[in-house]
Amino acid sequence: MKSDYCSLIEPIVTSARQAALFMSTLSSEQKNRVLEYLKDFLEKNKNVILEENAKDLIVGRNKQLSPALLDRLELNEKRIQGMIIGIDQVIALEDPVGEVLEDYAHPLGMKIRKSRVPLGVIGIIYESRPNVSIDCAILCLKSGNACVLRGGKEAFYSNKILIRLVQEALIKGGFPDTSVQLIPTTDREAMTVLLQQDSFIDCIIPRGGEGLIRYIAENSRIPVIKHYQGVCNAYIDEEVDWDMAKSVVINAKCQRPGVCNAIENILVHQSIASTMLPDLAKALQTNGVKLYGDERALSILQQQGIQCTIATDKEYLEEFLDLSLAVKVVDSLQEAVNFIHAFGSGHSDMILTNNAKTGENFLNQVDSATVYWNASTRFTDGFEFGLGAEIGISTDKIHARGPMGLRELTTYKYKVYGSGQIRPS
Amino acid sequence: MKSDYCSLIEPIVTSARQAALFMSTLSSEQKNRVLEYLKDFLEKNKNVILEENAKDLIVGRNKQLSPALLDRLELNEKRIQGMIIGIDQVIALEDPVGEVLEDYAHPLGMKIRKSRVPLGVIGIIYESRPNVSIDCAILCLKSGNACVLRGGKEAFYSNKILIRLVQEALIKGGFPDTSVQLIPTTDREAMTVLLQQDSFIDCIIPRGGEGLIRYIAENSRIPVIKHYQGVCNAYIDEEVDWDMAKSVVINAKCQRPGVCNAIENILVHQSIASTMLPDLAKALQTNGVKLYGDERALSILQQQGIQCTIATDKEYLEEFLDLSLAVKVVDSLQEAVNFIHAFGSGHSDMILTNNAKTGENFLNQVDSATVYWNASTRFTDGFEFGLGAEIGISTDKIHARGPMGLRELTTYKYKVYGSGQIRPS
Repeated sequence: MKSDYCSLIEPIVTSARQAALFMSTLSSEQKNRVLEYLKDFLEKNKNVILEENAKDLIVGRNKQLSPALLDRLELNEKRIQGMIIGIDQVIALEDPVGEVLEDYAHPLGMKIRKSRVPLGVIGIIYESRPNVSIDCAILCLKSGNACVLRGGKEAFYSNKILIRLVQEALIKGGFPDTSVQLIPTTDREAMTVLLQQDSFIDCIIPRGGEGLIRYIAENSRIPVIKHYQGVCNAYIDEEVDWDMAKSVVINAKCQRPGVCNAIENILVHQSIASTMLPDLAKALQTNGVKLYGDERALSILQQQGIQCTIATDKEYLEEFLDLSLAVKVVDSLQEAVNFIHAFGSGHSDMILTNNAKTGENFLNQVDSATVYWNASTRFTDGFEFGLGAEIGISTDKIHARGPMGLRELTTYKYKVYGSGQIRPS
Repeated sequence: MKSDYCSLIEPIVTSARQAALFMSTLSSEQKNRVLEYLKDFLEKNKNVILEENAKDLIVGRNKQLSPALLDRLELNEKRIQGMIIGIDQVIALEDPVGEVLEDYAHPLGMKIRKSRVPLGVIGIIYESRPNVSIDCAILCLKSGNACVLRGGKEAFYSNKILIRLVQEALIKGGFPDTSVQLIPTTDREAMTVLLQQDSFIDCIIPRGGEGLIRYIAENSRIPVIKHYQGVCNAYIDEEVDWDMAKSVVINAKCQRPGVCNAIENILVHQSIASTMLPDLAKALQTNGVKLYGDERALSILQQQGIQCTIATDKEYLEEFLDLSLAVKVVDSLQEAVNFIHAFGSGHSDMILTNNAKTGENFLNQVDSATVYWNASTRFTDGFEFGLGAEIGISTDKIHARGPMGLRELTTYKYKVYGSGQIRPS
């Protein structure tokens, strides 16, 4: 049965497709000019933005959203200033569109040129933080894409005003305001209709909790680029500089435990476990970490009177998103690699070792988007990787893997320049 | 409800995932050695292959398959020799795995290296021609991927013997025979179960008729790289070399009308239509082409006594796959571009013009995988584009666009080489 939301969604996606054709031919100067207008509109409309955001906060408090959620939802002078700085950064980035990826001659004399073009229409589905509306809109704009945004219900009024300002900047620049559109409802059925529009949307990028992302992956006819979770792992080899390992592990777990590139599991080689593990555990506990461990780890730690709870598969599979950590003693690099393939999520994994051969083996064998030798998994991030921006992180293997920036919002086309060549056979 | 086919499919896909981890670490020499063994096994088992193929042909004749289908199904000495030559060509191709795509330093001193790795497990779903089994198996093998193949029921026995020989070559090379597996049933329900295995299969490449591909796209939880159709278009500009245009159009329509890169529609600029169209139409009809046309084309042609049937949207949207062709008179480049976006399938489109600016505008504005200026659309092909092989053609924009070769069967990973770096904030 056709959903009632079809009549809402269809004009949005068809006009976005039209806008995408227009956007794809713009110069960097034209796109940057709109971004400058947007900076100006955000600056001049701070009060209106804060008023609309206040409506979301009132609804949120009435719904008794958690303080953490309310904090993410809240806009203030500083956060609006943050958006403006973000726009300046995107203006400074190189425009990926038009880059020639390959240029070669066919034996019959035609020139074949493979060059970078925008993807077309990007659908972005995200939750609470209203800043994401601006982040996504400006990255799509700079890369010559149209976008259709579906924000979370908590930020409904905030997203609405922010996208209205983006559209005003587009109009001032002489662009169709359909280049950036916000779905005017957060009803899930409308989202489900959106996910069927594979003739009009080229790619869906979901940002949010695992439940939302799974729903999207299972209900989308459009390709989805995503990561469900960040179950990141550290393997501490027998040949290792203990102080270095301790410092990197503590950074990877404790510096910001609620993010996807923090580690959730540590694997320790058995030959150093009895000496190193207690030392490491104490340092972690000083940082407030709660430990889970397998039987071998448990017995080592309990002998030293260190608190540790038995770990089951449930703990090893869990993205704690807090200061919990599961430990396991392993007999070999191979066991560590097998564990990571069984329990990790293909996001970011690291080895700590002084042995270059062991390090390289780990980097080659672990099938994850980003693999580290003696550096913290916390670096998995578009800015840290020099992409200048980040629209998401992918643990998929199709199209983009790891942090995604402007280039990951593009595809390519082949242009063939001939002089009447025909195919002989 | 869980399908009964789960118990068949699950061991196949889990063992394929294991095999993929093994395959990803192999050297080019190891992979080429298996390809050499396979050549040898095909050579030595010609008679067995022909016997098994004969079983398919008997079933096919009893089912009264069309002569064209029976022809595609049939193997003979020459076709087996063709497979062997194909393997030699793949052996000669450069191995894409291990290629360093980027190598740069993080400000804190880590080295970040983006390098090419196999996708993992490729699912390939295809119809009648048994040669496709060998083509796909060898391309996946050379690119370090495991594959799960699901062939058509018509070629059941032929596919079975061919893949058994591949597996024997794998075993002789010391590789797991689960690296290349054939689903031992052609039941559609088994295929549907396969399409749900997104934890084990990284990518589905369907090859076959539009109906099959649409079914797959709508029922797959795994990313699908595909093209539904090849509705390719030619636009003849007012400033054009008539003889060149005529020769390219005839090549693009008539040289092999049953393939996806043949053209289905011609758009002619109104200012040359009344003179050029009759000449072009006569030349096409000499080649056996049946013409459809809009009212303007019809009136021009009928004045000259040239047979032409009125074209509706149905004809403009149709992939004829035979010597039919629809013609339309347009007033401008823009109208041609709009027509191509409305009726084309984003596969291959061409402009014929002497005006470089008009040519470049067409190449930039037409949003298709491959766009041609003064050369035949028939060149859209992995071999012609220098990829050395072709596993399919994509009209999607995600991951791969246009002809797909070995490189399109890879992804990348980021390897980070540090010396204890931690993230400061």
